Amino acid sequence: MTYTLVLLRHGESEWNAKNLFTGWVDVALSEKGVEEAKRGGALLKEAGVNPDVLHTSLLRRAIMTANLALDVADRHWIPVKRSWRLNERHYGALQGKDKKQTLEEFGEEQFMLWRRSYDVPPPEIELGSEFSQDADPRYADAPVVLTEALKLVLDRALPYWESEIVPDLKAGKTVLVAAHGNSLRALVKHLDGVSDEAIAGLNIPTGIPLVYELDEETLAPVKPGGTYLDPEAAKDAIAAVANQGR
Amino acid sequence: MTYTLVLLRHGESEWNAKNLFTGWVDVALSEKGVEEAKRGGALLKEAGVNPDVLHTSLLRRAIMTANLALDVADRHWIPVKRSWRLNERHYGALQGKDKKQTLEEFGEEQFMLWRRSYDVPPPEIELGSEFSQDADPRYADAPVVLTEALKLVLDRALPYWESEIVPDLKAGKTVLVAAHGNSLRALVKHLDGVSDEAIAGLNIPTGIPLVYELDEETLAPVKPGGTYLDPEAAKDAIAAVANQGR
Repeated sequence: MTYTLVLLRHGESEWNAKNLFTGWVDVALSEKGVEEAKRGGALLKEAGVNPDVLHTSLLRRAIMTANLALDVADRHWIPVKRSWRLNERHYGALQGKDKKQTLEEFGEEQFMLWRRSYDVPPPEIELGSEFSQDADPRYADAPVVLTEALKLVLDRALPYWESEIVPDLKAGKTVLVAAHGNSLRALVKHLDGVSDEAIAGLNIPTGIPLVYELDEETLAPVKPGGTYLDPEAAKDAIAAVANQGR
Repeated sequence: MTYTLVLLRHGESEWNAKNLFTGWVDVALSEKGVEEAKRGGALLKEAGVNPDVLHTSLLRRAIMTANLALDVADRHWIPVKRSWRLNERHYGALQGKDKKQTLEEFGEEQFMLWRRSYDVPPPEIELGSEFSQDADPRYADAPVVLTEALKLVLDRALPYWESEIVPDLKAGKTVLVAAHGNSLRALVKHLDGVSDEAIAGLNIPTGIPLVYELDEETLAPVKPGGTYLDPEAAKDAIAAVANQGR
């Protein structure tokens, strides 16, 4: 027997479309993002993958992606758990900044270090500034986060994985995690044992469910990397991201 | 100190618009229903009523109403609990039937008895028939329900009220219950001590949050009947429903 885990990255947000660093800023899905979410639900339904429980971040782009996808998949009624531990990486002082301007201001080397290094976080965000979340009531029970590198995302996601997601898997439930590029990369790094170096080159496309069958003893993926429900579209999307920097 | 409970009846569904008995059939919101839900969220936000936890039925018209309202109210990130015990009344063999045809077929007396009596349920639905939910996986842990009068709705909603909603209230949380005409009437009957006779004349309008402040000792409403966030619109809607049968 295996356990079934489904990872779903939210569709395009209004700030993806505007090329701004988003992080914990709680922007909505764009129209394209809404369509991506619905298509993700249709892929689940077609494949007969029926989530029994949903885990989301506290950000509306992931929450709405899950709401829309599950409605299309006729699984809108399943239980829901949410945690800041599944949030996107906090982008520190870069939150709200234009990506192109940031690249010009700081140069490509620094820019790529902030974007892709495993453990170098961007500068900390100023408390009380426009794009800081320190006064947001949804984080009342969370520590104040001022910036994060991917390593910190993994450090804060892992306790949630262990305490909330693994028990659902071990109860035999098909688990859907609707989250973000970096919180899902962190989970994939953990599941597939990706090295600190190799994780920089790993991208997860938006809106295409990624299904992992996990060994019931070890929770290791039966097929490393899992299976996208639309493998052709996933391949194209991954290639497009890889070419973005060129 | 008081506890705050918010009741929200879902907006118009596709079958409300078509004048069919719905019950547990899982139809979507109409476009008008979507707008009602968003307006409900705007009313919450304007009034500064911030739900800390959401309870819904297992039916998409209530789930989607809550999703849309909470998104507008910037409370999309709160925890969610769902239960069949908050479902609409099961309409038995009438589910899927046209209301006007049913009225003509059975006569007004029988029709009104099924619609409005406290304890006379419609005929039972046939197991395995088109509009029965006996094979629906979402009810795997629920008893098989074949028909319900309002009394039975109250009987099955009350254990959920006691075991799930009251503890959230007593923890000081503002609780939003997004549900249905009859499951909300059942809760209101319980809260306000409405008699079996008087409940027939009590209608809850769609999409307008109804806020109760509850005494912290007795859980009795400080103001019987609670307060609609748009009292004028609620009054008009209640008058319109009362005039429907004339």
